Amino acid sequence: MATLEDLGVSAFINILSAFVFLLLFAVLRIQPINDRVYFPKLYLAHKRTHDHSSRSAVRRFVNLNICTYITFLSWVPGALRVTEPELIAHAGLDSAVYLRIYTLGLKMFLPIAALALLVLVPVNVSGGTLLNLKKEVVFSDIDKLSISNVNPGSNRFFVHLLMAYVFTFWVCFMLYKEYSNVAFMRLHFLASQKRCADQFTVIVRNIPRISSHSTSETVDEFFRRNHPDHYLGQQPVYNANRYAKLVKKRDRLQNWLDYYQLKFERHPEKRPTRRTGCLGFCGREVDQIDYYQARISELERKMASERQKVLNDPKAIMPVSFVTFDSRWGAAVCAQTQQSKNPTQWLTDWAPEPRDVYWQNLAIPFFSLSIRRFLISVAVFALVFFYMIPITFVQSLANLEGLEKVAPFLKPVIEVKVVKSFLQGFVPGLALKIFLYILPTVLLIMSKVEGYISLSSLERRTASKYYYFMLVNVFLGSIIAGTAFEQLYTFLHKPATQIPMTIGVAIPMKATFFMTYIMVDGWAGIANEILRVKPLVIYHLKNMFIVKTERDRERAMDPGSIGLGENLPTLQLYFLLGLVYAVVTPILLPFIIIFFAFAFLVYRHQIINVYNQEYESAAAFWPQVHSRIIASLLISHLTLFGLMSTKEAAFSTPLLIFLPLLTIWFHKYCKSRFEPAFRKYPLEEAMEKDNMEHASEPNLNLKSFLANAYLHPIFHLFEEAAKEEETVEVRIDKAQKQQHHHRQEEETHVRSSSQYHEESHLRSTHEMHYHHEESQYSRSTQYHEGIHVRSDMDSPSPPHFVYHYDIQP
Amino acid sequence: MATLEDLGVSAFINILSAFVFLLLFAVLRIQPINDRVYFPKLYLAHKRTHDHSSRSAVRRFVNLNICTYITFLSWVPGALRVTEPELIAHAGLDSAVYLRIYTLGLKMFLPIAALALLVLVPVNVSGGTLLNLKKEVVFSDIDKLSISNVNPGSNRFFVHLLMAYVFTFWVCFMLYKEYSNVAFMRLHFLASQKRCADQFTVIVRNIPRISSHSTSETVDEFFRRNHPDHYLGQQPVYNANRYAKLVKKRDRLQNWLDYYQLKFERHPEKRPTRRTGCLGFCGREVDQIDYYQARISELERKMASERQKVLNDPKAIMPVSFVTFDSRWGAAVCAQTQQSKNPTQWLTDWAPEPRDVYWQNLAIPFFSLSIRRFLISVAVFALVFFYMIPITFVQSLANLEGLEKVAPFLKPVIEVKVVKSFLQGFVPGLALKIFLYILPTVLLIMSKVEGYISLSSLERRTASKYYYFMLVNVFLGSIIAGTAFEQLYTFLHKPATQIPMTIGVAIPMKATFFMTYIMVDGWAGIANEILRVKPLVIYHLKNMFIVKTERDRERAMDPGSIGLGENLPTLQLYFLLGLVYAVVTPILLPFIIIFFAFAFLVYRHQIINVYNQEYESAAAFWPQVHSRIIASLLISHLTLFGLMSTKEAAFSTPLLIFLPLLTIWFHKYCKSRFEPAFRKYPLEEAMEKDNMEHASEPNLNLKSFLANAYLHPIFHLFEEAAKEEETVEVRIDKAQKQQHHHRQEEETHVRSSSQYHEESHLRSTHEMHYHHEESQYSRSTQYHEGIHVRSDMDSPSPPHFVYHYDIQP
Repeated sequence: MATLEDLGVSAFINILSAFVFLLLFAVLRIQPINDRVYFPKLYLAHKRTHDHSSRSAVRRFVNLNICTYITFLSWVPGALRVTEPELIAHAGLDSAVYLRIYTLGLKMFLPIAALALLVLVPVNVSGGTLLNLKKEVVFSDIDKLSISNVNPGSNRFFVHLLMAYVFTFWVCFMLYKEYSNVAFMRLHFLASQKRCADQFTVIVRNIPRISSHSTSETVDEFFRRNHPDHYLGQQPVYNANRYAKLVKKRDRLQNWLDYYQLKFERHPEKRPTRRTGCLGFCGREVDQIDYYQARISELERKMASERQKVLNDPKAIMPVSFVTFDSRWGAAVCAQTQQSKNPTQWLTDWAPEPRDVYWQNLAIPFFSLSIRRFLISVAVFALVFFYMIPITFVQSLANLEGLEKVAPFLKPVIEVKVVKSFLQGFVPGLALKIFLYILPTVLLIMSKVEGYISLSSLERRTASKYYYFMLVNVFLGSIIAGTAFEQLYTFLHKPATQIPMTIGVAIPMKATFFMTYIMVDGWAGIANEILRVKPLVIYHLKNMFIVKTERDRERAMDPGSIGLGENLPTLQLYFLLGLVYAVVTPILLPFIIIFFAFAFLVYRHQIINVYNQEYESAAAFWPQVHSRIIASLLISHLTLFGLMSTKEAAFSTPLLIFLPLLTIWFHKYCKSRFEPAFRKYPLEEAMEKDNMEHASEPNLNLKSFLANAYLHPIFHLFEEAAKEEETVEVRIDKAQKQQHHHRQEEETHVRSSSQYHEESHLRSTHEMHYHHEESQYSRSTQYHEGIHVRSDMDSPSPPHFVYHYDIQP
Repeated sequence: MATLEDLGVSAFINILSAFVFLLLFAVLRIQPINDRVYFPKLYLAHKRTHDHSSRSAVRRFVNLNICTYITFLSWVPGALRVTEPELIAHAGLDSAVYLRIYTLGLKMFLPIAALALLVLVPVNVSGGTLLNLKKEVVFSDIDKLSISNVNPGSNRFFVHLLMAYVFTFWVCFMLYKEYSNVAFMRLHFLASQKRCADQFTVIVRNIPRISSHSTSETVDEFFRRNHPDHYLGQQPVYNANRYAKLVKKRDRLQNWLDYYQLKFERHPEKRPTRRTGCLGFCGREVDQIDYYQARISELERKMASERQKVLNDPKAIMPVSFVTFDSRWGAAVCAQTQQSKNPTQWLTDWAPEPRDVYWQNLAIPFFSLSIRRFLISVAVFALVFFYMIPITFVQSLANLEGLEKVAPFLKPVIEVKVVKSFLQGFVPGLALKIFLYILPTVLLIMSKVEGYISLSSLERRTASKYYYFMLVNVFLGSIIAGTAFEQLYTFLHKPATQIPMTIGVAIPMKATFFMTYIMVDGWAGIANEILRVKPLVIYHLKNMFIVKTERDRERAMDPGSIGLGENLPTLQLYFLLGLVYAVVTPILLPFIIIFFAFAFLVYRHQIINVYNQEYESAAAFWPQVHSRIIASLLISHLTLFGLMSTKEAAFSTPLLIFLPLLTIWFHKYCKSRFEPAFRKYPLEEAMEKDNMEHASEPNLNLKSFLANAYLHPIFHLFEEAAKEEETVEVRIDKAQKQQHHHRQEEETHVRSSSQYHEESHLRSTHEMHYHHEESQYSRSTQYHEGIHVRSDMDSPSPPHFVYHYDIQP
């Protein structure tokens, strides 16, 4: 156990490293060459563009203005200057509410820390148990400030009990205020939002197949019958699985083509060649540029025919559809009610934003869904409690004797001393590190298997899985030594009343550990977050080797996102630590407060300048944050309960029992009071917005506004490419098209023309017959939307859009 | 522990007593004098009427037809002859589905019993452990047939494991089939139901108070704005608290008046008199009949003014309202969606049937509701686990030494030997008996405090509370000796893995106890149910002392109802016993099968001939039945798990772990698959029925149909009385009324006239302006409805309708 001095040293090191990171950040961020690493959001929002002209060659890369180096915290006022409404407009409500979690932490823990340090620390210090026992047990100095210093059976525990009540009430009060604030912000945000396609759209899943009808006809008939007054149209979902694969392949070939063309430009004397045989070693020699051009054009022919197939084949339409209504009221009604007599068919729900849709999961049928959820919940349980088993297995393999047994021929290599020490010292740790690094991805994949249909819900589900992992393996794992599996065994074989005692006794002893944890994981981690080492390195590497055009440079930017999947559980862990230690070892609280304050500044800066908003869920994650903090409160009560019962404070049992009961009631009340605001959309609101819209824009053509809003992004992508590359040809083609409308032999036309045509065909087939001329203008804004969506799609890292469906039987 | 012979004796006694009950029933039911005890349902359904004329005086009371005495089971074919559709038409879907629980039990346990007796019993008998150990422990013969007889560590346990899987799959299969059947029956029933007010009505709670508006205006405005196409009207709910009290008081006085008038008729020579002073001993002497007549007329003046106040005072209107729509579709939409931005206001839900409404709970505000639910759940927990504490306290008071200490002056009385033995032997048991007798009532009151607004939901909630009590105190309490509180203490202080072991080991040893329990509580209890001893006695007592007219005789009938609150948990306990013992001691299964078969016959007979249907919830209790049987399955797995682990069958752990997991998954699947059919109303269905109705009755006046359907029964009562007593005067008054409509001074008119007028005023004020003349005819059917409702209200026993509100601030 660490003494105060040890802790001081640790704090010094961590503060120093954080300081160094900040200093580095201060220097790097003002170099123009790093502009796209530290301000990608501004580029995405078109608030900053690269200007080539004005500056000299050196100044384009290095900042020579000495003045700007002086104030290394100059980013802080900039981060604070932006008001909350501006922030919402700039980065969305999700980001703004995410930052409120930090301010909630500050508002919660500042008064608690003040009270605890003023009241509990003096009580603990004057308790003086440990001073008497000094000879027997070696206690740290920290323990003098904690509850461990109070004599068993002392009346001083009444003070702790009182404080536990005061803290719980304060936390509940703050939680209530914040929940009501966030709910209000959400409703206000939704009310003031401009017209969006998702307000009018409902996603319908599990559409029954009727043999004589196509899916589109079935949907149309069903909604015309059951929502006669408000049904507008529908957007079928295509199975673009194979097509997406082809697109991916073409992109890869295009990359190679670009590479060789660049090579040729640099060395015009020699055209790059290759052999066609295996691995390029044998076979006929061909010109690389010609070869790839030929393959690409061949692939594009294939793509065209595949696209035709997707659009014309009724079997390519999935049993899922985006149904649009002529009013928000109609959509709200449809989303909240049960449609069919068979409760597993015609499942309706709010459509996520178009950019938020996770296309692959759309077609999972109901039965499969229920099996998937069940299997994944078993898998998560196994992962949380038994994850050490495969890792230990890998580690034992890396164990030298084991390795020698498995592969005796390696013996001479292993016996070399350097190799041996490397293997022994590094590999076992590496296995665990790699596991922890890929864990969020694994959890995300698990959530995907569960079948959620929007990125936002996927992230929320990932966050909740990660929370369980952290709770068991970081919190309980640190308190009770041993793996989670051993803990599970202990818990199953100990009486229920013993468990809180075991935890309660260990809690004060682990305070210094958690302080160090907060400094390493919290302080230094946040400083690392602002420096963005990984994106910085990757960007410059890409810039050196890949980037050719301004457009490539834009693609090389990796703005990233807030990463709710990882950050929410981390934050929730800090809340847990703060609440558990508030009564037990209040000296831990300042560490948490510094974390919250520092992280608030950093994340505010990053949200303004760096992160790209992938979707807007209007703070849909708040109920989760709220209930996790409530769970933390309950855990803190339980540990206090256990601790008190070992301290022979018999009076505490009946007094403490009310705390968890009241907390549970508070939670239930909040849930019923606020949660509907996050799950449902009130008709009052919908009607109000509908009426306002009718009054202000009586001639609004909603059909054209909604047409294609929920088209699969792969088609948008195509459409956009066609527009971008050969706009002139399209214009010419438009005239032709009006002559021979709907003629299939147009496939033989130039590529872009036929593409464009198919797009328009696609539009006209889906019960959304509107005038081509009239809607041309309104559609142009949509193309812009399409581009926007696509810029997300194309960013290098996200694995979300693999452009294919799982087709379930 | 009982041997086979003991069990045989017990079985003989119970079968004999059941036989005696049946014989008594066979004799009593064919006596005309008992007709209204054994066939009240037929009287209520007007399928049987009392005929005075044809028979002689003796034959009117006693059946002298010898032939009818011979076949003492003659009621059985009659009970079986009725088909299910007839049963639904006669007694409602609830009753029919309730009977399906018994057939489900038979379908489930007959094959299980056959398989278990054929396979498991031979395996157990040839196991032969106990024979070797005979000298050490005394085992009963039953144990030779049970799993206890198998050697620890034997491979024979694989058979038991296999059977556990087979039984679980069979039970799940039957449950699935039954759930789907019941869901289909429910949907079919709702679809084929004739037009009811509740199909068009939504109950709105927590209407916000707007100072400048009355509640009615607020409701009207809100729904006109947010449901403009379908909103029809509303029925405000009045605070008839004081008025209901006055009605009750008048009824009491009227009873006295009737009594004295009867007395005077019998002895016309002497008018009954009394003194006005204290307890009738001093003061002026008055004529009793005059006295009560004067008091009644005074009270009726008060009632009239109170009624005026209720109808005219805007504060008497509660913040709750029944809102009607012009189509089922509109009502379905409103019931299933969120209305207001504030999720605690404008809470909408399906309106229960008018006869199902529990009026007192209508006005409980949201916040109070959440506190009530929380407090009651704490109270139920306390009741289940600590109910022995107050009883032990009462018992210790009844303890002689204790009593002598508390009241020393009683010493000489207590010391008398007879009194002493009475006190010692009888009183302690009496306290427990009284508690168990009033327990369902206590639980019902608790459910009422929770704030449920329909009788059906109150009964369901009572059932679930009672189930917890039975599970802990009957099932666990019998297995682990000691009070529930002691069990709780044991469970908290034992490791989690030890608990199933403790239960598992005790399970086979308690088999004989539960067999006896099934015989006493099940067999004899059912025989007692058919004999209806209590209603028989009470009816004849009433008939002797109170009944004067045919109408009184109708009131004296106590048909009772199925009593889901008590019967569902009892049935669920039998399912639990059957499933737990299926693998362990299969010889118990025949006892349960006999119970199910016998109870099925008896309840079928009772439902056809006796019970009065209080409401129709369309089998809304089925999800509860289903999930309780699933819970029983899980408990059976857990006990088997514990039992196996003590039997050193190490292989069983990994094999058994899948059973509960699969069961949980099955439950989740069924829940999502079928439960929406019980909670929501599909729009498809609503639209279909609306369209059919429009086609068949294009000129239907829905407003007049819905007017006053949800008027507080106290007003219906009044209206009806007015009509019945002074129809002529009303007719005259009608002409007057048309002349000076809406004049307040009509209060001075004769009572009935003013009453009638107020009724019409009541109608015309609530946004349901319709032609008086036109609707007169349609209303007449409603009066009939009103009478029907009232006949429930007036039946002597039910405590549900106390005719007052709790007004919450």
